[in-house]
Amino acid sequence: MYIVMGTPGAGKSTVIKEFKARHPDAQVFNFGTVMFEIAQKEYGIANRDEMRKMRRDKFRELQSRAANELMKMGKGIIIDTHASINTADGFYPGMPNYVLSKLTIDSFIYVHASVETVLSRRLRDTTRRRDIESLQELRFHESVNLAMVCSYASYVNAPIKFIINEDGKLEEAIKQFEECVRI
Amino acid sequence: MYIVMGTPGAGKSTVIKEFKARHPDAQVFNFGTVMFEIAQKEYGIANRDEMRKMRRDKFRELQSRAANELMKMGKGIIIDTHASINTADGFYPGMPNYVLSKLTIDSFIYVHASVETVLSRRLRDTTRRRDIESLQELRFHESVNLAMVCSYASYVNAPIKFIINEDGKLEEAIKQFEECVRI
Amino acid sequence: MYIVMGTPGAGKSTVIKEFKARHPDAQVFNFGTVMFEIAQKEYGIANRDEMRKMRRDKFRELQSRAANELMKMGKGIIIDTHASINTADGFYPGMPNYVLSKLTIDSFIYVHASVETVLSRRLRDTTRRRDIESLQELRFHESVNLAMVCSYASYVNAPIKFIINEDGKLEEAIKQFEECVRI
Repeated sequence: MYIVMGTPGAGKSTVIKEFKARHPDAQVFNFGTVMFEIAQKEYGIANRDEMRKMRRDKFRELQSRAANELMKMGKGIIIDTHASINTADGFYPGMPNYVLSKLTIDSFIYVHASVETVLSRRLRDTTRRRDIESLQELRFHESVNLAMVCSYASYVNAPIKFIINEDGKLEEAIKQFEECVRI
Repeated sequence: MYIVMGTPGAGKSTVIKEFKARHPDAQVFNFGTVMFEIAQKEYGIANRDEMRKMRRDKFRELQSRAANELMKMGKGIIIDTHASINTADGFYPGMPNYVLSKLTIDSFIYVHASVETVLSRRLRDTTRRRDIESLQELRFHESVNLAMVCSYASYVNAPIKFIINEDGKLEEAIKQFEECVRI
Repeated sequence: MYIVMGTPGAGKSTVIKEFKARHPDAQVFNFGTVMFEIAQKEYGIANRDEMRKMRRDKFRELQSRAANELMKMGKGIIIDTHASINTADGFYPGMPNYVLSKLTIDSFIYVHASVETVLSRRLRDTTRRRDIESLQELRFHESVNLAMVCSYASYVNAPIKFIINEDGKLEEAIKQFEECVRI
């Protein structure tokens, strides 16, 4: 199982999407989507913003149930998720220890781009509704993400592969992704 | 239980003090003070500097006993503490895993100010005796604190709320604190 | 047991070597060398590069066996190792939790020098074959190392002593090292 995380706005989804286009047999799951499907079905949640504002214990329960679902999917799957989740209560660890302890992880793949690249992309991106983060928040988010993924890696003893996805470097990023994932 | 930490000099104590003034029913405990009270009573320690220089195993014991005391204080309490403690032996984790494992934590609240703000405050503060840290030490301390709090959050699966307390922003900081704490 | 780590190129080995020259009774073990000796003997590995490219499960096994060897060496020993190991699969934690859980650690000693110092040293060092890291990789490596060591310290509740080893400061660095280690 490959856990893909990234600096917000670094192009994680683009890299995964393009990888999937080239490797149609790859099994990709979005952790948030798996959570959301459970949330809709069993907690009457209508949208993702609402899910982020859920009570803490329910949110934890959801994470746990999503992990259980993913455990059933077999080896070599790719999980698209977040190192940390920015909610009204603060930054939640995306993969807290009790979730990690349920999973067998080959490696963490962390897609990164510089803050400058991320901000310039966000200014151009009018198609996707995102909570707007200030530069300071973005730097916090990035530092938190990095520290979180190191904590996860120590806990499960898996490596962290950093993939740099600056503008115009998508092809290289995908090549590195392909080297890392053995599906 | 809310664990309040911060960048050294970011104004954590001021934020907590002002919050307490507006919410007299709030129960605030200082982790170091709880430790120090036990240290005075049972280890013959005379002052906090001496406590910081205690033998490692005794220091650990103290942390553990302080955690036990705090567990008896009920829900919704606010703990004023440190992400890391700068001792002669180096930076100790303020909330190591075995301490965390004894506590039920709603969230970590991390009060932050930029290094520039912190340094300018320290130059003005002549009332309080502090070990003087160089700029480089301060940056280390800040990085260590951030990584530590992320490690704590992963371990207990609680969120980290960052509250920015730059000069002239105390009112906003307290407002954010109030939104975060449900007492 | 003292675990010595450092920013790559910060001069960790030089500090340890000089300390050993002044304290011939000090017992110093290199974690990688202990691993490599086992790798040569039992996995037919010819050089260290080959060891870094070993299959993940074998690499984990090696780490574990090296930890077992070191546990037999008594108290007060000094372990020369890495906070993270840069392999083809990404950055491995040098001391993952299951390795840490086997060891009794007095403190982590982290030798640091600024990125500028490290790069200028590497330009001058033609005697040692190293994988060349770009400035961006070096910064990642440094951030990963720092977050890793904080995670280790939280897990085992040991302090982290940072020793700054800028050019011309070796004497001070060794003095700090001597204050930290009680052999």
